[in-house]
Amino acid sequence: MEEKNLLEMIHSPEDLHALDKEQLHQLCREIREQIVQTVSVNGGHLGPNLGTVELTVALHRVFHAPEDKILWDVGHQAYTHKLLTGRNREFHTLRRYGGISGFPHPSESEYDPFISGHAGTAVSAALGYAASNERQGKSGHVAAVVGDGSLICGLTMEALNNVRSTCKNLIIIINDNRMSISKSVGAIPNYLNRIITGKSYNHFKAFSKMVVGRMPGGEEIIGNIQKIEGAAKSLFVPGIFFEEMGLRYIGPVDGHQLPELIQTLERVKEFNRPVIVHVITKKGAGCQYALEAPERFHGVSGFDPGTGALPKQNNPVHFSSEFGKVLCELSELHPEIAGITAAMRSGTGMKEFSEKYPERFHDVGIAEGHALTFAAGLAANGIRPVVSLYATFLQRALDSLYHDICLQNLPVLLCVDRSGAVEDGPTHHGLYDESFALSMPNLQVLVPKNEQELRAMMFYAYESASPVMIRYPRGSSGLGNLPVSEMSKGKSEVIREGNDLVIWAVGREVGTALQAADLLEKEHGISCRIVNPRFLKPLDSARLLSDAAELPLVTLEDTVSGTGLDMLSDRLLINETHHRILHFAWQEDTVIPHGDVSHLRKQFGLDAVRIAERIWNEIFMKNEIQGKQA
Amino acid sequence: MEEKNLLEMIHSPEDLHALDKEQLHQLCREIREQIVQTVSVNGGHLGPNLGTVELTVALHRVFHAPEDKILWDVGHQAYTHKLLTGRNREFHTLRRYGGISGFPHPSESEYDPFISGHAGTAVSAALGYAASNERQGKSGHVAAVVGDGSLICGLTMEALNNVRSTCKNLIIIINDNRMSISKSVGAIPNYLNRIITGKSYNHFKAFSKMVVGRMPGGEEIIGNIQKIEGAAKSLFVPGIFFEEMGLRYIGPVDGHQLPELIQTLERVKEFNRPVIVHVITKKGAGCQYALEAPERFHGVSGFDPGTGALPKQNNPVHFSSEFGKVLCELSELHPEIAGITAAMRSGTGMKEFSEKYPERFHDVGIAEGHALTFAAGLAANGIRPVVSLYATFLQRALDSLYHDICLQNLPVLLCVDRSGAVEDGPTHHGLYDESFALSMPNLQVLVPKNEQELRAMMFYAYESASPVMIRYPRGSSGLGNLPVSEMSKGKSEVIREGNDLVIWAVGREVGTALQAADLLEKEHGISCRIVNPRFLKPLDSARLLSDAAELPLVTLEDTVSGTGLDMLSDRLLINETHHRILHFAWQEDTVIPHGDVSHLRKQFGLDAVRIAERIWNEIFMKNEIQGKQA
Repeated sequence: MEEKNLLEMIHSPEDLHALDKEQLHQLCREIREQIVQTVSVNGGHLGPNLGTVELTVALHRVFHAPEDKILWDVGHQAYTHKLLTGRNREFHTLRRYGGISGFPHPSESEYDPFISGHAGTAVSAALGYAASNERQGKSGHVAAVVGDGSLICGLTMEALNNVRSTCKNLIIIINDNRMSISKSVGAIPNYLNRIITGKSYNHFKAFSKMVVGRMPGGEEIIGNIQKIEGAAKSLFVPGIFFEEMGLRYIGPVDGHQLPELIQTLERVKEFNRPVIVHVITKKGAGCQYALEAPERFHGVSGFDPGTGALPKQNNPVHFSSEFGKVLCELSELHPEIAGITAAMRSGTGMKEFSEKYPERFHDVGIAEGHALTFAAGLAANGIRPVVSLYATFLQRALDSLYHDICLQNLPVLLCVDRSGAVEDGPTHHGLYDESFALSMPNLQVLVPKNEQELRAMMFYAYESASPVMIRYPRGSSGLGNLPVSEMSKGKSEVIREGNDLVIWAVGREVGTALQAADLLEKEHGISCRIVNPRFLKPLDSARLLSDAAELPLVTLEDTVSGTGLDMLSDRLLINETHHRILHFAWQEDTVIPHGDVSHLRKQFGLDAVRIAERIWNEIFMKNEIQGKQA
Repeated sequence: MEEKNLLEMIHSPEDLHALDKEQLHQLCREIREQIVQTVSVNGGHLGPNLGTVELTVALHRVFHAPEDKILWDVGHQAYTHKLLTGRNREFHTLRRYGGISGFPHPSESEYDPFISGHAGTAVSAALGYAASNERQGKSGHVAAVVGDGSLICGLTMEALNNVRSTCKNLIIIINDNRMSISKSVGAIPNYLNRIITGKSYNHFKAFSKMVVGRMPGGEEIIGNIQKIEGAAKSLFVPGIFFEEMGLRYIGPVDGHQLPELIQTLERVKEFNRPVIVHVITKKGAGCQYALEAPERFHGVSGFDPGTGALPKQNNPVHFSSEFGKVLCELSELHPEIAGITAAMRSGTGMKEFSEKYPERFHDVGIAEGHALTFAAGLAANGIRPVVSLYATFLQRALDSLYHDICLQNLPVLLCVDRSGAVEDGPTHHGLYDESFALSMPNLQVLVPKNEQELRAMMFYAYESASPVMIRYPRGSSGLGNLPVSEMSKGKSEVIREGNDLVIWAVGREVGTALQAADLLEKEHGISCRIVNPRFLKPLDSARLLSDAAELPLVTLEDTVSGTGLDMLSDRLLINETHHRILHFAWQEDTVIPHGDVSHLRKQFGLDAVRIAERIWNEIFMKNEIQGKQA
């Protein structure tokens, strides 16, 4: 007999203790329903959160947050955690402006000890928590929940190397669903898989025969070993890899069996030394369509909660799909092209390429630094690598970009997707990549206004045979009607002529500029010239100088202010005679929150209406009044 | 009977094949002499290079460079490689402007397949080489030589995860000297050490008793195990950690026994699958004083080659030593302070602190990302971490700085040493940190003019209790005579008054500005005001605005142009009435080479003489002529 809505009765994790076994199961069902329902409307991470329902319930049943700290790596697996820690009632505001964030955030709840949106940070931060507990004589436990995909991330491995066996009460839970966003790749995920399938002890046999057979009395010993072969599986501790790193290994544990999970965690809690608990989960557990298409339902924008049907896309052409298409075209023409991504195969649009050219496709897992240095190694030896990453994750590869690619002037094409502000919020905004990219020697930085221009730029980059970065946002440009003229190094293009004002709009912002120009024309009769710079590096200085000498200049771009075209134009024009300059970009020294990007744009004055208003007020109205006064 | 100077007869590695065993030993002695002699004069990396003499001779004897590729991780272990590959005659120009670089560089020799100055890149780049060889049907071998200190670097681990067992002819040599710059730390170095000392199988016993004892027939099995206990050491493959990663492990091998090394490498060459060769070396081998003080002789500026005596320092006070002193002071006052470094204990000046407060000192090894995220974890839980890194290595931690520290506004003090141009060259110039740091939300960025000001800034940062970065160069300021006024957030200070010109000089560049000002006064009677901004973020906008309205403005800084004060001032002043502005910083979009920094400054117009000249020519002479013409 089901009680009605147990979830509504959970105001804090303490309330879990009042529930019996059957009620806990019912709670898990209700949580799944709530997650599916909310994500189907608001969008968000479906699969990862359905996979951690039982694990989260078990963690909160066994540990006592907020005294005990639970750190969720990546953070897109923490919806159940949010539901159990007093955020069920607000959960319908998930990912909306001013609402619940899609990731843990300390300012949102005392149960969130640490921000997390990028993979690989949890063990490192948990070590900080554990070490500071120790220093301050606090007895709380610290648990880090880390996906198998995050385990291979350099930051996680650096942290694992630093777990001292004296560091007590640290529990690292591997949430092993054999995926990052795509399928997990590499030696460590393979190793985890061998543990699960009981194959990690196999070479024990081969080695024992080879090594012992040569020893005095070896034959007899082998006989003994064969007797104990049945025991070999246990003898060869499954987690030896972690044991050799000084960590106690427990597992594998079924991550959807609540009693087993609770029992294991209860036991582990008493260990008084760092421990790895290897938990096997299924992305999308409890939801058939999410289980069947885990990559598609990793993160979604909205869907039919009953059938999982995704809304039809009106415009199937967007920057990522165009990137994928052109990559295939280029690859057909040039056999030396290779494609690299870091666990973002579908998101970056590389699926078709990966299927068409499996031997030329490299998914290195969540390892952005390695992606770029590996690309440099390929490029140094005659291959032409094309790397695609999200702008926010490029922050993890700055040193590889500088030290391995740019210093050696190697022909790596870096296609930076999801640049600019995004719905996911501060951890994911692609606003900081230009700050360092524009300072890199030998690197050209290009931004396309639409998908066809991305195509032209990729062909241009191939011909350049030197480091090129092309930066574009999520989704479609909506500017498919704009023609694409021939590419020429460091040359901008005029999108529309005008006599009163010139707007230099970077990439897709050409669209925002066209709207603002229309408003200015309609409301004030102002005629705007619009320029698409195409190249931020090298910049079309000649045209910028002449435009600024002729007309008031406005710049508009989807990056943090002070790092892009605004900085470049100020530097160029500071000692020149020029008209007043207005810059539009995301406010600096400010954490831009999460939420619908069109809402964020209004809030920060980056939509066409507010841009037109400010241009009128700050450039023309003043002049008009002054003109009238004169 | 020693032949005279074998080294002079080696023009390429092929010449090694003509030498017999005894001659090879003599060659090693000559190489050591050449290294000690040259480094004693030019400065450079002594210990690491003395440790790889035999290993390098063996590698070049067995493999056939340049068809086979040898990639040196960090690159500061490659002097012998340079001596054997046609660079013996130029070796006396080591690290001098226009001379041989202290690191491998493809533009210097076809035997250097890849740049390397930062740790952890070799396996990743080697994978690129191996994969592209495979794709192109090239049969060459690829060997990466990686220190044990680099092995724990996230980038190396990311690469190791991506070694596919199908990737043939890849040889990863662990050059295990149990040190990075300082002693290597953490689980993986411990593990290597357990291999060497034969202790890696110890828990085998404990586990076998625990696990098997509980099984049916377990007693008998334990009896059998005890019989084979002697074999257990071999049974428990020493390199199981690597074997579980899909790599064949060979070792440990004595890295100073040439015949053993050659034999091992010959065998490995035929494996046709990726292999780890674990080579044990001694930093400073063959040179008593370097052996005895490996941290001191890791990198040196010059010394007596006979005794190893280092030149007396005239000024024992420099930025790093002051940092260390103040860290101790602050720690005495505030028990919640912790100190973190990434294998740069001595270099950053943290030695005294580490000895005084061992429980509050964290050397995380070459793991800059982890250093910052770990610091964030500590800070989130009540500890006040002070992290010191070199500017060039901060590039590896940008994402941790943004995602883990700045987004959460956590009170981490980041002391960035070795900023600005350095002798080591492009891989080590600390010129790019401001490009990203100034775009980070919540982060204050301070630059001290002298050591006492660094002290004031560290106390200020403690009081700020928010993310603060203090940036300073190697060595002394030479400005100890300048008084330090009280710190106030976002406030600059006037160093000297003047009526014709104002120079805003960042940090130690105040000294260069004073010299240039003296020249301008002496030669042209120009009176310069000099301002020390102290804060780049938040900038003293009020004073900058009024200074620029009043006088021609010059900025001077030790960073790449377009990323620091020049960019900030241009942005601030672009729409203001101002006099002509001149900026001095390192040329953008240009690889600044290695060599004596005072030489580099002349070359790039950043010494006082050239600065004074340009100011006269571009600001005053023009005006004077125009004045006369009017």
